[in-house]
Amino acid sequence: MPSYTAPNRDFRFIINEMLDLGSHGNLPGFEHASEDMVNSILEEAGKFTSEVIAPLNQIGDREGCVRHEDGSVTTPTGFKQAFDQYREAGWGTLTQPEELGGQGLPQVIGFALKEMMSSANMAFGMYPGLTNGAIAALLAKGSPEQIEKYVPRMVSCEWTGTMNLTEPHCGTDLGLIRTKAEPQADGSYLITGTKIFISAGEHDLADNIIHLVLAKTPGAPDSSKGISLFVVPKFLVNDDGSLGDRNGVSCGSIEHKMGIHGNSTCVLNYDEAKGWLVGEENKGLAAMFIMMNEARLGVGMQGLSQAEVAYQNAVAYALDRRQGRALTGPADPEAKADPIFVHPDVRRMLMDAKVFNEGMRALCLWGALQEDLSHKAPDEGDRKAAMDMISLLTPVIKGYGTDKGYEVATNMQQVFGGHGYIEEWGMSQFVRDARIAMIYEGTNGVQAMDLCGRKLAQNGGAAIQAFFAMCDADIAAAKEVDGLKDLAEALDKALGQQKAATMWFMQNAMANPNNLGAGAHHYMHIMGIVTLGLMWLRMARVALEKLAGEPSDKGFYEAKLVSARYYAERYLPDAGALRRKLEAGAEAMMALDAEAFQTAA
Amino acid sequence: MPSYTAPNRDFRFIINEMLDLGSHGNLPGFEHASEDMVNSILEEAGKFTSEVIAPLNQIGDREGCVRHEDGSVTTPTGFKQAFDQYREAGWGTLTQPEELGGQGLPQVIGFALKEMMSSANMAFGMYPGLTNGAIAALLAKGSPEQIEKYVPRMVSCEWTGTMNLTEPHCGTDLGLIRTKAEPQADGSYLITGTKIFISAGEHDLADNIIHLVLAKTPGAPDSSKGISLFVVPKFLVNDDGSLGDRNGVSCGSIEHKMGIHGNSTCVLNYDEAKGWLVGEENKGLAAMFIMMNEARLGVGMQGLSQAEVAYQNAVAYALDRRQGRALTGPADPEAKADPIFVHPDVRRMLMDAKVFNEGMRALCLWGALQEDLSHKAPDEGDRKAAMDMISLLTPVIKGYGTDKGYEVATNMQQVFGGHGYIEEWGMSQFVRDARIAMIYEGTNGVQAMDLCGRKLAQNGGAAIQAFFAMCDADIAAAKEVDGLKDLAEALDKALGQQKAATMWFMQNAMANPNNLGAGAHHYMHIMGIVTLGLMWLRMARVALEKLAGEPSDKGFYEAKLVSARYYAERYLPDAGALRRKLEAGAEAMMALDAEAFQTAA
Repeated sequence: MPSYTAPNRDFRFIINEMLDLGSHGNLPGFEHASEDMVNSILEEAGKFTSEVIAPLNQIGDREGCVRHEDGSVTTPTGFKQAFDQYREAGWGTLTQPEELGGQGLPQVIGFALKEMMSSANMAFGMYPGLTNGAIAALLAKGSPEQIEKYVPRMVSCEWTGTMNLTEPHCGTDLGLIRTKAEPQADGSYLITGTKIFISAGEHDLADNIIHLVLAKTPGAPDSSKGISLFVVPKFLVNDDGSLGDRNGVSCGSIEHKMGIHGNSTCVLNYDEAKGWLVGEENKGLAAMFIMMNEARLGVGMQGLSQAEVAYQNAVAYALDRRQGRALTGPADPEAKADPIFVHPDVRRMLMDAKVFNEGMRALCLWGALQEDLSHKAPDEGDRKAAMDMISLLTPVIKGYGTDKGYEVATNMQQVFGGHGYIEEWGMSQFVRDARIAMIYEGTNGVQAMDLCGRKLAQNGGAAIQAFFAMCDADIAAAKEVDGLKDLAEALDKALGQQKAATMWFMQNAMANPNNLGAGAHHYMHIMGIVTLGLMWLRMARVALEKLAGEPSDKGFYEAKLVSARYYAERYLPDAGALRRKLEAGAEAMMALDAEAFQTAA
Repeated sequence: MPSYTAPNRDFRFIINEMLDLGSHGNLPGFEHASEDMVNSILEEAGKFTSEVIAPLNQIGDREGCVRHEDGSVTTPTGFKQAFDQYREAGWGTLTQPEELGGQGLPQVIGFALKEMMSSANMAFGMYPGLTNGAIAALLAKGSPEQIEKYVPRMVSCEWTGTMNLTEPHCGTDLGLIRTKAEPQADGSYLITGTKIFISAGEHDLADNIIHLVLAKTPGAPDSSKGISLFVVPKFLVNDDGSLGDRNGVSCGSIEHKMGIHGNSTCVLNYDEAKGWLVGEENKGLAAMFIMMNEARLGVGMQGLSQAEVAYQNAVAYALDRRQGRALTGPADPEAKADPIFVHPDVRRMLMDAKVFNEGMRALCLWGALQEDLSHKAPDEGDRKAAMDMISLLTPVIKGYGTDKGYEVATNMQQVFGGHGYIEEWGMSQFVRDARIAMIYEGTNGVQAMDLCGRKLAQNGGAAIQAFFAMCDADIAAAKEVDGLKDLAEALDKALGQQKAATMWFMQNAMANPNNLGAGAHHYMHIMGIVTLGLMWLRMARVALEKLAGEPSDKGFYEAKLVSARYYAERYLPDAGALRRKLEAGAEAMMALDAEAFQTAA
């Protein structure tokens, strides 16, 4: 059976040493996040996720969720008890506002918990994960009454939340939505329609489920400008907070999916379900994007999470499984064969995984700090800068993070040879679970277009220019430091590819917008490569500084330097190839008509 | 439900126009393979695979194989009837020797059938596929009596065959095998041990199963030099050819796999099963490699097969599903949205698939022609050259073909968005089935080492030098042709990267063999990219020639030219990045010890 250990040494390195969370003590909530407090939260979270949540991962995959004839849904064995423990320990309250029952801690800490939850059991982690997204939308757009009515009990995890966007005929293009909202005399609406792919749509973990639903009011514009957001509780909530009637929303079926079997992905049928408008009419898409952006960062982290847990198990297997001899002569002459860890191709896959995971973890946590700064920095300019940065990076974290997360999980399965293909070993599940992260919350193609079609151009390219300036500054400083020069130069070269690609877009996208679309995916990957390179430069800098102080765990910091070098050797070269592909433009890509793609017998 | 159409126009293009099979009419068996005959075999095979075999693919995935208490195994609904049809139509006899009941047709035609079978239903295709491997080993190493006893009924598909290599503790490193073979007075052996991952190990499709089993005789060397090959029939065969007693081999369990559920992957327990030595004692590995090499080409084709069928279904979906608008303005203003086929990122994935599939198909069929030439060319030098070439290319076809096949299948699933993750759509199965091809018959890491550690150096590098000379000649000729110049130059550049990488190995592998191991996977991909580039150059050349004749299906040939250009734009650039990675060597890759990989809490 696979196992999971929270990578707490690495979390501490990133949070305390690289991000230096202590230096942000002036931000609200950060005063409670002393190094000791952070370390003890990580320790407890590590125990909880590895001991309580992880052992349910394979069970969830095997059993899946069961829909009963009355439309109720039972989650896999142990999920309910584990969610009770999650609720009772208050894990859901970590980063939520204190006035609503939360602990007001930094997002950085919340993100660390999210990674652990998702590594331990991605399907399970989605139940609280989606609740967080729904809370964020209500906090941003809900009325004070709505917030008071729903949010505290979602923070406490008495209730969970969902997002209802997709319908059978529409996913990405939400302008096509058909679900209707009929206004009633009492100010409520009656919601009717079918939603599909609703994660955590129905289950037995909580007393109530708060659905956030996109629908169209009568006469609304026939486009994405005619969508409104509604809150539709599974059970109506009386004014005294007690639960009232069952609302007209029910689970029609549970999807048969490639993975995340432990999460109930539902078809939800709305049949004159009572709902209330959240925010303004016809402004639902903007509200949904608040959940979306929160969710997209979470999904990017899911890519990392599966790569991480798959990596841990592949390392254990590579050290245990004996097959063949080291190319340089027997490593363990007493035994009949060496552990496969000695084989360079196995090491290649493990190193590829290690440097992706650690780099991606740094990116996610640094991104979380930008989230915090965007809300909490005292200076408005700082808030704006942080908001621009995380907004620019969100599609990269989601798109690059999940593309690579899936690739790494696949490679870790490869380390197991034939055993990797056998379900009992658990590696197949990591791959199958990781696969959805490239698709949901906007496919990675949508992420690429969000990055290139929207984020790059916003405010005259201010965000990407700020990103370049930040990279330039880090690189310039590192070039002055012995031991960072090579890495800084390699990163500078990759950054140069990104700048050239950006310039190419500026010069060629106007003439033919397909040139942008044709290169968007390449660009997203170039930027992912550069961004992780920046993280590695920063981690290497910290490691060098620490090594100068002769620390007791020298090996940890030395490994960071080797890993940074490996990243430069094995990841950065792709930036140049991707730029060449991008600069090929749309011509050949778009030249063939439908017939040319259809198989001729 | 997904569907499959045999890409017969493309098969005809490759076989009749690019390979010009007719020009090899001097080879034995080729005289029966007139263009008309080839076309009519393709047509019949296309009908059979798409109408009979493909509809069973999802059923096989859902039902899997069932082992009963008595150890017997039932294949999924419809498999037995379909295999009866396969047998009755004589599909198994296509390329087998005429004197043993075969039709003696070229391997080129056999490979086309294999691709179709595997696209239609990969799990089903493995039953006859493994039989072919077993026949090849018996033909090469079996005694005349063994051949007479077993082969005709395997050719006719009355019986099927298996390969038994893997044991619980050993896969790649066959020197560790523990299965024992005790010699008996009558010249037979009693085989005892446990074999795992035995595809088609037990089933209800045929009256008998002929197992080829690796085992150790008493006192054999404790290494891969002490392995012998045995033939162990499920039912003993009497001298008159009738079936005798049930032999001591039984299915202990069926593995729970990520995919290919329709194939019964068995644990086989040998308990004093009666077997007979095939070939010489302690020379079993060489015999097994005959099956292996045959099987590896078949597995490379499995990568293509899943990429192809996934592509066909993704094209259909992309033309049907409407979401959003073309970046250049509505393509279908009457409708509420355009087909997603208009989006460049969808087109990117489809074009990536198209040019891989067509290039890989050309490579597999050209490889099959080398197989034919290696056995049938009148001149010994020609036979040797063809043998060297296919031997060099086998790990590339297997390793590169399945790495990319899986990637393409994954991208085709991506075209479906959320629906791609739902099992009913069938895209998940293509990905899950494709996944095994990177693992079995030697993981792709083993393929890379076979290529770089063995094949490159053989005979002083004669094979790779011949490959370079062939590429150089094609490129030089193409540079003289208007319309091929750009492609030839781009390929020349990628070939230059491969030559440089080869040189780097020569200069650095002696000093540290890990430098070879560290770059082997990169090298295999560079060579895959170059080889498919050569195929595209040849296809483009043929297309240009045909276009000069103003053919009626101009569009087909024009599409080949666009695709060749796209290949140069989107695939060839990776050769340079891979070379840079390769030249980074083993230092950072191998620098960290086990502790640095283990997660610290």
